[in-house]
Amino acid sequence: MSLDLAAIRAAHSRIAPYIHRTPVLTSATLDALCGGSLFFKCENFQKIGAFKARGAANAVFSLTDAEAKNGVATHSSGNHAAALARAARLRGIPAHIVMPTNAPRSKIESVRRNGGIIVLCEPTLAARESTCARVMAETGARLVHPYNDYAVMAGQGTATLELLEQAPHLDLVIAPVGGGGLLSGTAVAAKGAKPGIKVIAAEPADADDAARSFAAGRLIPLEKSSTIADGLRTSLGEKNFPLVRHNVDAIVTVSEESIVAAMRQIWEVMKIIIEPSCAVPYAAIMETRIDVKGKRTGIILSGGNVDLDALPWMKR
Amino acid sequence: MSLDLAAIRAAHSRIAPYIHRTPVLTSATLDALCGGSLFFKCENFQKIGAFKARGAANAVFSLTDAEAKNGVATHSSGNHAAALARAARLRGIPAHIVMPTNAPRSKIESVRRNGGIIVLCEPTLAARESTCARVMAETGARLVHPYNDYAVMAGQGTATLELLEQAPHLDLVIAPVGGGGLLSGTAVAAKGAKPGIKVIAAEPADADDAARSFAAGRLIPLEKSSTIADGLRTSLGEKNFPLVRHNVDAIVTVSEESIVAAMRQIWEVMKIIIEPSCAVPYAAIMETRIDVKGKRTGIILSGGNVDLDALPWMKR
Repeated sequence: MSLDLAAIRAAHSRIAPYIHRTPVLTSATLDALCGGSLFFKCENFQKIGAFKARGAANAVFSLTDAEAKNGVATHSSGNHAAALARAARLRGIPAHIVMPTNAPRSKIESVRRNGGIIVLCEPTLAARESTCARVMAETGARLVHPYNDYAVMAGQGTATLELLEQAPHLDLVIAPVGGGGLLSGTAVAAKGAKPGIKVIAAEPADADDAARSFAAGRLIPLEKSSTIADGLRTSLGEKNFPLVRHNVDAIVTVSEESIVAAMRQIWEVMKIIIEPSCAVPYAAIMETRIDVKGKRTGIILSGGNVDLDALPWMKR
Repeated sequence: MSLDLAAIRAAHSRIAPYIHRTPVLTSATLDALCGGSLFFKCENFQKIGAFKARGAANAVFSLTDAEAKNGVATHSSGNHAAALARAARLRGIPAHIVMPTNAPRSKIESVRRNGGIIVLCEPTLAARESTCARVMAETGARLVHPYNDYAVMAGQGTATLELLEQAPHLDLVIAPVGGGGLLSGTAVAAKGAKPGIKVIAAEPADADDAARSFAAGRLIPLEKSSTIADGLRTSLGEKNFPLVRHNVDAIVTVSEESIVAAMRQIWEVMKIIIEPSCAVPYAAIMETRIDVKGKRTGIILSGGNVDLDALPWMKR
């Protein structure tokens, strides 16, 4: 099994009752600044505040009753954790969420509010993986990986299917890249539904494993990253990489400063709340890493979950 | 001349080319919290970030060429200043904006960006009025008052006309009240277009002149106010008061703490940016000053212009 347009269309029918069809917003001010037409797909308004609601719902509702009966499990300290908890609650099955003891309180609360069973572990990748393996062995729960999973990718791709219905004449789509779940889904959906469209990924220079892997033609894992775009501090998945290689036209990187500037400009001009990871594609436009002049460009705004007591410009 | 539904409908036709038809957003989370259905009319997404774009556009485009030829003038340190500058630029006439020397830099920038001619004065009401009178005498510009003006009120009412098209089955509409321009327009539009609908105003307890005037049946001017809802620190206008008396069902007041809590909850849950004045109606719902249980309630979100370096929860 891999990922194709048919799988993304099937995912969209499957998850439609459980997700928002999010609006596409435009801004005359930002269009004037960049010299092109920008169409922002507002997944920050999605359930649980991020596109992750789509992939988790598709993974959970793709399971047979026999596969689903012992629940699902994942290790994540981010939006996927809340999304999986929510999808499992909607299906009426347990979700075991392994989270590090140092996860932000707001993220733990979000999982709890969505009915997830939280299993805390030491804040290392080894501890997260071993704890998750133990939970799965004890409960029979099935793993739903945040991005290295075709059902998850198909779900994430549904945002682009909607975007292309809402703004049919796009020349280009830009998505952020971390593990590659969103990017794989976006690229396969866009190229499948509209051959000839360009797909460009934007990545923090401080977490540039996807750009380096893409250039080298082989997976180069991410070393430690402290990018403010915390949702993108993951290495490209092995199932994601071939899909990215074959369907993405370019991967560009942006500085930490421009991520913060882009986030702030979108808050100020568009009056919407986006998280740092979500600002990365627009940062690439501000840095003129992507030529959008005279073009119609779709941008996946990935999420809006921020800690209002710790905004990037407060720290300065 | 006064204000009626026909004038608001005419205003809508007149200004439609110059304003956004803003979206109406809903939130399952907030509906669950209040036990009703809330429909948020997002004037924070309006041109210049506030409903004031409507009233200023209607006032400027209602002028005959002879009336318009020497331009317009106002004294305002808020959203009306930028809105009037923008409307005048669109019509190709000068706008003289009298602003106090202590006006926030961002507000002055916004007027300048929209092409307004800024005239600074001492930060007292007397100085603002005398400076504005002098500018009008010298230039022949016509005054466009921020709220005590029927053309302005008619423009503000167009938001409610749209809201009732976008959410036709409303039982109730809530608007904030400061000078009463938005409230007059909202109430006349709502009662005119949908007899039987309730209209409730929400006001900071720290600037409760409208509530006290409404109860007393006579205008009681506002003493000094330092409410965080800076857009509402004005006394109800004398043209606005009779319209409010005859078309509004109730005026409720809210605490400063609940204004900040309401603003923050809307940011966190809806992922949209609203200014403190804009949070006042939802604060009244949070404080259960307005019974919305089982009802369909429209809320005018008035604006989204905030200083991101000085958010209320940073000051604590």
